[in-house]
Amino acid sequence: MFRIALLAAVFFATSALADPLPSWRTTDAKARIVAFVDSVTDPDSPDYVTQAARIAVFDNDGTLWAEQPVYFQLVYALDRLREKAEADPSILTSEALKAGAEGDFEGLLASGIDGLQEVLAVSHSGMSVQEFQSDVRDWIATATHPETGKLYGKMVYQPMLELLAYLRAEGFQTWIVSGGGVHFLRTFAEETYGIPPQQVLGSATPTEYDADLRDIVKRPGIAFVSDKAGKAVGIDSRIGRRPIFAAGNSDGDFQMIEYTMAGNGPRFGLIVHHTDAEREFAYDRDSHVGKLVRGLDEGPGRGWLIVDMASDWDRVWADE
Amino acid sequence: MFRIALLAAVFFATSALADPLPSWRTTDAKARIVAFVDSVTDPDSPDYVTQAARIAVFDNDGTLWAEQPVYFQLVYALDRLREKAEADPSILTSEALKAGAEGDFEGLLASGIDGLQEVLAVSHSGMSVQEFQSDVRDWIATATHPETGKLYGKMVYQPMLELLAYLRAEGFQTWIVSGGGVHFLRTFAEETYGIPPQQVLGSATPTEYDADLRDIVKRPGIAFVSDKAGKAVGIDSRIGRRPIFAAGNSDGDFQMIEYTMAGNGPRFGLIVHHTDAEREFAYDRDSHVGKLVRGLDEGPGRGWLIVDMASDWDRVWADE
Repeated sequence: MFRIALLAAVFFATSALADPLPSWRTTDAKARIVAFVDSVTDPDSPDYVTQAARIAVFDNDGTLWAEQPVYFQLVYALDRLREKAEADPSILTSEALKAGAEGDFEGLLASGIDGLQEVLAVSHSGMSVQEFQSDVRDWIATATHPETGKLYGKMVYQPMLELLAYLRAEGFQTWIVSGGGVHFLRTFAEETYGIPPQQVLGSATPTEYDADLRDIVKRPGIAFVSDKAGKAVGIDSRIGRRPIFAAGNSDGDFQMIEYTMAGNGPRFGLIVHHTDAEREFAYDRDSHVGKLVRGLDEGPGRGWLIVDMASDWDRVWADE
Repeated sequence: MFRIALLAAVFFATSALADPLPSWRTTDAKARIVAFVDSVTDPDSPDYVTQAARIAVFDNDGTLWAEQPVYFQLVYALDRLREKAEADPSILTSEALKAGAEGDFEGLLASGIDGLQEVLAVSHSGMSVQEFQSDVRDWIATATHPETGKLYGKMVYQPMLELLAYLRAEGFQTWIVSGGGVHFLRTFAEETYGIPPQQVLGSATPTEYDADLRDIVKRPGIAFVSDKAGKAVGIDSRIGRRPIFAAGNSDGDFQMIEYTMAGNGPRFGLIVHHTDAEREFAYDRDSHVGKLVRGLDEGPGRGWLIVDMASDWDRVWADE
């Protein structure tokens, strides 16, 4: 009996070692990821990288969790706008706010960035960071996706959770570098991805220190846009070290991956390509969210891995 | 022989345990620090704090290293301005730049913040972050202080190095939140304090991603001032979690400590009071750098520890 238990323990330990990414099919994508991690963590490898320099950055929307039919944070903003407008219709002082409260995405998008800012201001400013995050936590715990019926907070990709855990087990520090709001992301990043608040970068409203409250309050407007070149700028400003691994899914991640790959020594760039209309969504060049053109055209020639969700992933969702 | 070695090992291990802060004299200051750390790290204590929440923030100038007669980063800026002006005097296009190149602090300060920005622009912009940091490293390795004759990079306080190491050994994550420039600080923070680049917050020039260089370049101007309320704002923006321990030395650190202390549960606020004219410098209310008025007047009543360098520290410098 003891022997069988021992054999079983050895067997499972070996298979865990042999397959750190069980939801990834045995394809070239998986082989390339594992080969890279092996090469930078083997002290005898010419590509060895010290643990301190093993910085890995991940986009969030479309890379770690879903983003269709529209960014989940925008759904939150519109849910809160609608509730507030029901209580007090006089807050709908513009066409953008009216469109937003009616869930009319096209009308809202027609009002441009100014309209979007008006909508965001209603739910994302005028309160302390604590109050905002408490409200987001309530929403994340209850709001469900119109197509999948899942909680938004559960629409995360199992293969990417495994990749995050695998990299951390191999001494990497994992970071989120998202176009989403930093205060929004921090409400679930630790529980969902194992990434603590101080390793989350995102877009931001202006904030102020309120000496009476002795707390930070959110103000209307946009202080930082963590997208495209802004992702590279944020990485330098916040991490201060060029990553050796970067994963994204849209052209908003292009500069982040380009900046990562331009460092000396071994680097890994990864793009999640949404090819799976059956299990998730299929979109790239013509999508209004997660638009991916340059990454598809230039990524492979630059040595970036394009992950094909439909063929490279054995399983998509973490809660199935 | 074996027994003596064993006894010696036990003895030294015990004394290390008994005194994590050997350069601190046995005063109330040391006792309060140790009592706080014990209370938040003991799982059976009502004040126990999980490791993830053990965030400690430290000012740099005047708290971890010296700042008299003037911030060392300004000395760097003036050294570089002087060198560039010797090579090409036509760059001295203003009174502020002329005063700076002559080492005339009063003339420079008379030109106000605009003049200071002109001086900083010469040495702190127009190059990549890599180039800037390489130049700072050269300077740090060679420039010496006019009064002590020490390398600037060696003018660090041994008791504070011990405090940093002690907190880390007890599961704290240590951060720098300095008014100094973030790119400047990161050139020595890891080697000198054991604090990696991603745990350094500071003031910042604007930066841009240069797609041709595939690198970050520094631009003239000031994008963020990490001082006073800006320190609390930076902590929220970058760490995303209220610290439980904050150490500073001037009124520029007041809001950082106030924000830290206002959280629920046990908190520790510490001010290094420069009282030691013999071993270091003595200054507070009337100093042009490290001015300390409110901290002295209100700190003790708020429960903050005021460290008296002359009486609480057995040793000041790390290299003695």
